[in-house]
Amino acid sequence: MTPGTNLLSDLVTRIADAGRGLLSQSGTPPDISKMCDTLLTGKGEATGLAIARAILDQYKKLKPAERLAFFTDLRDRFGVDRDALDAAMASAIDTGPAELRQLHIASEPRSQELIRRLNRAPGGTSQLVAMRRDLLDILKKDSSFKVLDADFRHLFASWFNRGFLELKRVDWSTSAAVLEKIIQYEAVHEIAGWGDLRRRVAATDRRLYGFFHPALKDDPLIFVEVALTVEIPGDIGKILAEERPEVPPKTAVVAVFYSISNCQEGLRGISFGNFLIKQVVEELQSEFANLKTFVTLSPVPGLRKWALEQKNEEVLAPRLKSAVKRLEAGEAVGTEVSEIAAHYLVEAHAPDGGAVDPVARFHLGNGARLENIHTGADSSARGRAGSWGVMVNYLYDLSTIEKNHEAYSNAGDVITSTAVRRLLKAH
Amino acid sequence: MTPGTNLLSDLVTRIADAGRGLLSQSGTPPDISKMCDTLLTGKGEATGLAIARAILDQYKKLKPAERLAFFTDLRDRFGVDRDALDAAMASAIDTGPAELRQLHIASEPRSQELIRRLNRAPGGTSQLVAMRRDLLDILKKDSSFKVLDADFRHLFASWFNRGFLELKRVDWSTSAAVLEKIIQYEAVHEIAGWGDLRRRVAATDRRLYGFFHPALKDDPLIFVEVALTVEIPGDIGKILAEERPEVPPKTAVVAVFYSISNCQEGLRGISFGNFLIKQVVEELQSEFANLKTFVTLSPVPGLRKWALEQKNEEVLAPRLKSAVKRLEAGEAVGTEVSEIAAHYLVEAHAPDGGAVDPVARFHLGNGARLENIHTGADSSARGRAGSWGVMVNYLYDLSTIEKNHEAYSNAGDVITSTAVRRLLKAH
Amino acid sequence: MTPGTNLLSDLVTRIADAGRGLLSQSGTPPDISKMCDTLLTGKGEATGLAIARAILDQYKKLKPAERLAFFTDLRDRFGVDRDALDAAMASAIDTGPAELRQLHIASEPRSQELIRRLNRAPGGTSQLVAMRRDLLDILKKDSSFKVLDADFRHLFASWFNRGFLELKRVDWSTSAAVLEKIIQYEAVHEIAGWGDLRRRVAATDRRLYGFFHPALKDDPLIFVEVALTVEIPGDIGKILAEERPEVPPKTAVVAVFYSISNCQEGLRGISFGNFLIKQVVEELQSEFANLKTFVTLSPVPGLRKWALEQKNEEVLAPRLKSAVKRLEAGEAVGTEVSEIAAHYLVEAHAPDGGAVDPVARFHLGNGARLENIHTGADSSARGRAGSWGVMVNYLYDLSTIEKNHEAYSNAGDVITSTAVRRLLKAH
Amino acid sequence: MTPGTNLLSDLVTRIADAGRGLLSQSGTPPDISKMCDTLLTGKGEATGLAIARAILDQYKKLKPAERLAFFTDLRDRFGVDRDALDAAMASAIDTGPAELRQLHIASEPRSQELIRRLNRAPGGTSQLVAMRRDLLDILKKDSSFKVLDADFRHLFASWFNRGFLELKRVDWSTSAAVLEKIIQYEAVHEIAGWGDLRRRVAATDRRLYGFFHPALKDDPLIFVEVALTVEIPGDIGKILAEERPEVPPKTAVVAVFYSISNCQEGLRGISFGNFLIKQVVEELQSEFANLKTFVTLSPVPGLRKWALEQKNEEVLAPRLKSAVKRLEAGEAVGTEVSEIAAHYLVEAHAPDGGAVDPVARFHLGNGARLENIHTGADSSARGRAGSWGVMVNYLYDLSTIEKNHEAYSNAGDVITSTAVRRLLKAH
Repeated sequence: MTPGTNLLSDLVTRIADAGRGLLSQSGTPPDISKMCDTLLTGKGEATGLAIARAILDQYKKLKPAERLAFFTDLRDRFGVDRDALDAAMASAIDTGPAELRQLHIASEPRSQELIRRLNRAPGGTSQLVAMRRDLLDILKKDSSFKVLDADFRHLFASWFNRGFLELKRVDWSTSAAVLEKIIQYEAVHEIAGWGDLRRRVAATDRRLYGFFHPALKDDPLIFVEVALTVEIPGDIGKILAEERPEVPPKTAVVAVFYSISNCQEGLRGISFGNFLIKQVVEELQSEFANLKTFVTLSPVPGLRKWALEQKNEEVLAPRLKSAVKRLEAGEAVGTEVSEIAAHYLVEAHAPDGGAVDPVARFHLGNGARLENIHTGADSSARGRAGSWGVMVNYLYDLSTIEKNHEAYSNAGDVITSTAVRRLLKAH
Repeated sequence: MTPGTNLLSDLVTRIADAGRGLLSQSGTPPDISKMCDTLLTGKGEATGLAIARAILDQYKKLKPAERLAFFTDLRDRFGVDRDALDAAMASAIDTGPAELRQLHIASEPRSQELIRRLNRAPGGTSQLVAMRRDLLDILKKDSSFKVLDADFRHLFASWFNRGFLELKRVDWSTSAAVLEKIIQYEAVHEIAGWGDLRRRVAATDRRLYGFFHPALKDDPLIFVEVALTVEIPGDIGKILAEERPEVPPKTAVVAVFYSISNCQEGLRGISFGNFLIKQVVEELQSEFANLKTFVTLSPVPGLRKWALEQKNEEVLAPRLKSAVKRLEAGEAVGTEVSEIAAHYLVEAHAPDGGAVDPVARFHLGNGARLENIHTGADSSARGRAGSWGVMVNYLYDLSTIEKNHEAYSNAGDVITSTAVRRLLKAH
Repeated sequence: MTPGTNLLSDLVTRIADAGRGLLSQSGTPPDISKMCDTLLTGKGEATGLAIARAILDQYKKLKPAERLAFFTDLRDRFGVDRDALDAAMASAIDTGPAELRQLHIASEPRSQELIRRLNRAPGGTSQLVAMRRDLLDILKKDSSFKVLDADFRHLFASWFNRGFLELKRVDWSTSAAVLEKIIQYEAVHEIAGWGDLRRRVAATDRRLYGFFHPALKDDPLIFVEVALTVEIPGDIGKILAEERPEVPPKTAVVAVFYSISNCQEGLRGISFGNFLIKQVVEELQSEFANLKTFVTLSPVPGLRKWALEQKNEEVLAPRLKSAVKRLEAGEAVGTEVSEIAAHYLVEAHAPDGGAVDPVARFHLGNGARLENIHTGADSSARGRAGSWGVMVNYLYDLSTIEKNHEAYSNAGDVITSTAVRRLLKAH
Repeated sequence: MTPGTNLLSDLVTRIADAGRGLLSQSGTPPDISKMCDTLLTGKGEATGLAIARAILDQYKKLKPAERLAFFTDLRDRFGVDRDALDAAMASAIDTGPAELRQLHIASEPRSQELIRRLNRAPGGTSQLVAMRRDLLDILKKDSSFKVLDADFRHLFASWFNRGFLELKRVDWSTSAAVLEKIIQYEAVHEIAGWGDLRRRVAATDRRLYGFFHPALKDDPLIFVEVALTVEIPGDIGKILAEERPEVPPKTAVVAVFYSISNCQEGLRGISFGNFLIKQVVEELQSEFANLKTFVTLSPVPGLRKWALEQKNEEVLAPRLKSAVKRLEAGEAVGTEVSEIAAHYLVEAHAPDGGAVDPVARFHLGNGARLENIHTGADSSARGRAGSWGVMVNYLYDLSTIEKNHEAYSNAGDVITSTAVRRLLKAH
């Protein structure tokens, strides 16, 4: 036995099972709301674990309407303790800064402590992540749950602090349990079964790295797929081809991040991922001294939708608008589609001043530079529907990412290569 | 390479090292206070990591007076943002419960976010635990730091949530790095070097289990030492003897928890440990079906001091007070010392209603029963100075610990064996 | 890095690569025969490793006719050193037993030392196993290679001594590299891809165990698939069904070995496998105390061929011969097919006195008892072609396997259940 | 549980325990000789394992005289089967080379098969290694056991083939079980407890590497201790000093092999170790690109004894003989002691043409060059007694070791540096 590997969870399961005996003696079916009350006020730790487990088990069986009721209950009954808060506020009015801190404690919603106690149950963390996924669905329709979501988000941000994450390479020696999750989570370029996966993780010129958290053992948080190549690629088809010559890693000079997937919907907004690429750059540099260039080959998912919506001549010149029409008619166009993409990525701003395109936001926010725009780069249905097949390279240069990031986040400036700047100036 | 094992920390170190270049360009020595400001407001993540690391490095070099200044700064300048809070309070007065939750966010001391960001640096967690140890020292003399300590304690309680802990057996196949910490941390019965350690972890009738946290890899949080025996022991000397016959584990019927040590001073008050014994009971039961009885052999560190202080006849009858005098004079006494111990453990209450003795508080709070009182059980200097050599057994019976715990925590009732009750009734 | 995991092979590769430089300076293409001479007589160890590697590399590129030439060369030129042997024999004629031992050393074929030296190259063991697979193909057509095969067999028997084997459970946490070998090696009931594999290794009521050798890291030698059930099964279709209710392991009372596959053709005749079942029985008993019965569900691959060949009335009574005809005509028959199988398995002896059926030989030789004969148990094409769908259970009872084994191997007695004996006596 | 880690040995133990029941039914104490007969002829594998185990257990209890009887029995009764051999010889006289190979099989001493069967028992390998250690002791006094030792040696050479060895780094994260063996096995510069060990394996400028065999899990076969330094050292005291400045590994340019220890007496003569240094050179080169020089700092254990024995002027000139006398008188001498050492190491030949000094034989045989001779380099009692404190550096240069090795092993030529050659020419 490797001590400890599964010991804790086994034991806690048994303790929880034992404790559950106490609960069910009443003979009545457990009421999840009452159990939450008991968990928050209960003193017995064995019982406490059992209740946490029972709540999580019960939650899994809830139907959608019951889930809504559960979250509503959490939101309305497990908020701030008003009496404690009023007392704290009264004494806080005229006090010094040190005493003010009591207010924070007094105003903590009870739902936070509830979530913390649920997390003690074996497997609690992953069930809480799943619970938040449900809550996010509800939140889309009813923004009043935002306050409850803030509790989950606050705790998850603390628990998934990057100091607790592990970067791991995933390859063909990795367990099937992890690998099947990779197949399932790939969100950009679908993995068509184990043969396709093998090509992506076992080829000598391919790498896959992910962030893992100790409490979600076989479940990655985010992962990136890398191709080692001899030049910056402009066609995803060549990267994904079943039959292709492998590049001896020692001769590769470019590392291409061709797919990045967030795995846990329930962790949306927890940005543990924004360091993944930088760390993988470091890892690859230390393994292959020959690598000089680190780029993505990324989709531009919002391009076509945006272009179709533009009415204003100042954004898209008439000849570009005309090109959009021809593209829609299925006709061939020249470099106009690249120009449109350049305008979209560099000049289209969201209300917060950042780029409109979600993939651009991620890489520009990380300090990457918009390097190349490729037409005919993605012939998949999704690629044609999103961007008439356009893909782009974002370039990661560790020596400039900090400066680029500051320019982008302070002033919305998109750093581009000369080639892209030329496209913007075309007449 | 096992991917990931040390990858993250290596990489983060390199990123941080790279980022630090940016910092030192100014040429001025880093000012830890200013760096804390920058870390909290800075947007660049690479720089952020570098600053976190620089603060932690700088902190290590501070002299005691500088540390006090650092913590004072944290307490006074990194408290609640008064403006944000006032605004939140103003809008909270007449609003519903949902909006009240904003108050919690508005009132979060900025020191909490600072600590979270420091934790992102490689090795940050263990350095923050060390930082709190220093803070606790300061707190002893100046209670105004209690509010700052609350921040550490709040975050540590979340990070060291028992869902994140691993129970591991420590034995002779464990790494020297862990084993030397065990030697260093043993707080009850000192381990006199590697030979003594070997006897405690490698003998077939001995076990040592600890709780570990993924961010403190080779550093246990708490551990317990176990002896497998054929009867409930009343003499620690026999347990610790260098030469003794080993008990074949399959014939053992008693498991004795003869030493429990908290390892991290900086985690004081974070009660991840109150489940250790119960889990070890479960583990031992599943490994050795023969084990029937789970007891401690525990010191009574406050006995002598308490007995010397008692003036009231209702607490200690005159013949027991007389026995105390004879004990102090080095004379032999009969069962009186056991009677005194029984009164101390069962009837001496702290202001909160619990037992006075710290070891008793721990085990009674866990739901154990006071089973036996042994005289002449600990002939060490510490044992004689603390309790004239008295030790006791607390018995762990999983089927009653919940009930015992409730009785103790609700009403302060100490559950005892018949033998102990007899001592209390002696005249 | 886990030191050592791949260190040795990496280093040896580099040393061998370095040494190879020396070899290729001549500019002529390497001649595998000459290299074998050099390897046997060479003193330089770095060169020696490089030559071993070069021979193995070169061997892989040989065409069939060249391989035949290579093995012929090994057989004819790397045999016993006649001069040394003659000298040893001359001095052995009239000497005592101790001196006779020299004869053994003098008569060792040089091919043995050659194989030992080839094994020093990184990855040498698995390449030697592959080499013997080729030799076995050649041996089928030309028995003069038997003497050379004896060298491989002798060394393999020593290297794959069961003291060096590891029993490992293969499950869904096993690496894809091992799992894909399982798919590839399954020889009895084909595994139709990863989904089928998952059902066999990840279901709670299924187990897969294999023997592994340290020098063939991810490559099993033999493995057995186990189903935990509530009764002895008589239909392989139910075991292999895609959709079926899982049996909670704690309620299972029967463990069924439903497939056993030898993986390495090049290790044919090295009987490291005859302990696998017994060890798995032990392993399952220690994990699931409820298990009472350990049986196989095995094919009877030689039944139909044997039955069609029988002419003698004393072997098969006329009514059974008639049943054979009806079976071949596709007509339904009653219990006659079971009777035929009973006669085949119990009464048909090979020249060595053992059973004729290869699967029966394996299990009876291991001390199992022929327990049940099932008709309509295997509706696959292979099952119908081999035995008209008949399968049987062999029962493993650790308390009698030794006695059964002795009876079978000494007298050819097949131990059977009452039910099978009844079939033999039917008229 | 990591499946398989200790599964096999556990199970085999249980099977063996079960089988042993069969053995002891007779009620008579087991006779080790008879058990050996039974093991060789027995067919039952469960019984076989049990007998193997019983023999090994029994062997451990034998007194010296009984051991001698046991080995005598093995030598005399388990030799070659004379009848089988005579038959094979008769048919071999006039046959072709292929048939001659039968003779090898016919002449195998039965003791070899006995040893192979003993090896199947759990832990068998290490017990057989211990058994040979005893045999070597006996062999020193009675050379008639040489033939029996040849059996052990032959099998061990096959089992400990370097293709089966693993190079592992031993550091402070290594298990105590391995580390305590390192303390125990260090044969050159004694390790004075765990603190001393820690300095040798945990300092950033120190390394320790060993060869391990899968069947001797926690037991190294040979290990080497390395110091990373900024110049070639001439004083072992500085290397071993308790207090010394650590060299940042990235600034080190020299790797010093300052201690090499064979661990298993029972493997004497099995030269798995002659590659250790070369592999460690490779490993260090790949980890630290700065390292340019790889040298030993080695004792010259035979120097003083040899010098005292020399009478011939052609070997030691009168002024050097005179220096020997002064050295023995405790007087200071100049460079003469270095000159004496140079003559000893370069010109003193053993009957086989190699160097006389055992340490020199090892390194020169590996292809190293005699680089420097240091006086006052080892002030320990052993160092003064062996060589008046002289130590030497042997230099490993991978590009010349093959050539050096050939020159040494073919012609006995000792390759030396210019500095050493100068010492030889001094007048």
